[in-house]
Amino acid sequence: MSLNAKEVEQLIRAGLPMAEDMDLRIDDAGERYARVTAPFSSRMIRPGGTISGPVQMALADAAMYAAILATLGRAEMAVTSNLNINFLNKPQPGDLTAEAIVLKLGRRLAFCEVRLLSGDDDVLVAHVTGCYALPAK
Amino acid sequence: MSLNAKEVEQLIRAGLPMAEDMDLRIDDAGERYARVTAPFSSRMIRPGGTISGPVQMALADAAMYAAILATLGRAEMAVTSNLNINFLNKPQPGDLTAEAIVLKLGRRLAFCEVRLLSGDDDVLVAHVTGCYALPAK
Amino acid sequence: MSLNAKEVEQLIRAGLPMAEDMDLRIDDAGERYARVTAPFSSRMIRPGGTISGPVQMALADAAMYAAILATLGRAEMAVTSNLNINFLNKPQPGDLTAEAIVLKLGRRLAFCEVRLLSGDDDVLVAHVTGCYALPAK
Amino acid sequence: MSLNAKEVEQLIRAGLPMAEDMDLRIDDAGERYARVTAPFSSRMIRPGGTISGPVQMALADAAMYAAILATLGRAEMAVTSNLNINFLNKPQPGDLTAEAIVLKLGRRLAFCEVRLLSGDDDVLVAHVTGCYALPAK
Repeated sequence: MSLNAKEVEQLIRAGLPMAEDMDLRIDDAGERYARVTAPFSSRMIRPGGTISGPVQMALADAAMYAAILATLGRAEMAVTSNLNINFLNKPQPGDLTAEAIVLKLGRRLAFCEVRLLSGDDDVLVAHVTGCYALPAK
Repeated sequence: MSLNAKEVEQLIRAGLPMAEDMDLRIDDAGERYARVTAPFSSRMIRPGGTISGPVQMALADAAMYAAILATLGRAEMAVTSNLNINFLNKPQPGDLTAEAIVLKLGRRLAFCEVRLLSGDDDVLVAHVTGCYALPAK
Repeated sequence: MSLNAKEVEQLIRAGLPMAEDMDLRIDDAGERYARVTAPFSSRMIRPGGTISGPVQMALADAAMYAAILATLGRAEMAVTSNLNINFLNKPQPGDLTAEAIVLKLGRRLAFCEVRLLSGDDDVLVAHVTGCYALPAK
Repeated sequence: MSLNAKEVEQLIRAGLPMAEDMDLRIDDAGERYARVTAPFSSRMIRPGGTISGPVQMALADAAMYAAILATLGRAEMAVTSNLNINFLNKPQPGDLTAEAIVLKLGRRLAFCEVRLLSGDDDVLVAHVTGCYALPAK
């Protein structure tokens, strides 16, 4: 039932035009985790020369979704019910990576934690928690 | 010092390519509030035919930013420090509107609340709170 | 099915020893709202002579619970699934009041917003959102 | 400048009557972390025989505060600016433990993550993030 990184990437890009526009890459995905990268584009910028908040939120949300799809298989109808993000450091204008883990997998809900990392030394730029409502089986 | 809706829109679009890509419109803005619309585009969709979470978060963040700029003037270096969103109802595939108010304006922080509304009957589709760190004067 | 303020107060105090210890009073309650007061006690204090965060959180949580009980009747098994609080101003060392409204009442979830008010001029000291998981009927 | 577990416990109990009422114990504390236990008491209960949300929030907040005091020394005037808690599993009616780490320590803000653990097998019962505003030096 579970999906590998390539299958998750195809599923997400097919369903989410924005993921395709951002050229999101699923680097790795498996039981309860995923690692997703947003390659740098000049469209991501905000004043100050850093990467905008919405790009970081979109990446974090996609990473949670990827971790859930990798774990449950074709649960595309899973939807975010809550997302809380704290911006800790300004990302460099470069690729941004998200590491998501599923901290609790219930029958109806999945609760996830995501770390957003920037630069060669993987600076923690944002911390995210989120809850997904899972489709009935 | 404060800015009107048109000035806020120009400032946001000049600094945020994503706001331009989304064709964000500042409908109204003034002392401690702003009303911002994301016109519908097929790139906003997610599985289920509704508007994706990241689009909703981007719109909410822009509305908070607009309310702050309308109030403080050219404070483009204000940055989101926290955003918490609860998704309450699935938006229709149409224009999405955000109404932001500044609940507390401190010297260093602005705390905002945003309601995302969808459809002709303004269904509340998401509730957002967020905190912006303000630039030193 | 719905309960009035007195009935809600009895139900909460019977089930939550901490509510009794805090002498919580349900000032008013009805369809989708409740107003709850925590009378001042010197046990509520924290360094700086203000009221501690945990007291504010306990009051906010009780106000959401009261609004849900007032609306649904004897749903004591409703449990908080998420609570997010932003502390905006330091409360005075006096009675603290919470006004809770239910923004969305689903079959399985209730999403609430609470404002904590302090002093004769009802200063907004904290803003809270929270989600309750509702018991199956 | 930093404080050990015993010193942190004395400081917290002296300033927070509620911490004393709860008999909070600082099991361990050091650079950017703390482990705090709330010994079980029948006053902690809520309907369903589990430990109430406010007790969990109070413990989590105290653990963040302890981690900050252990790191910075006598910074009692540090105050919570935001706390977000997700309740994941119902705690057993027994001692509850919080493990807090400081994920980012800025000049003006400390951002923390807390895990609440219950029972002999340390079940994760709640996940908390929080932000403290630090006093000027």
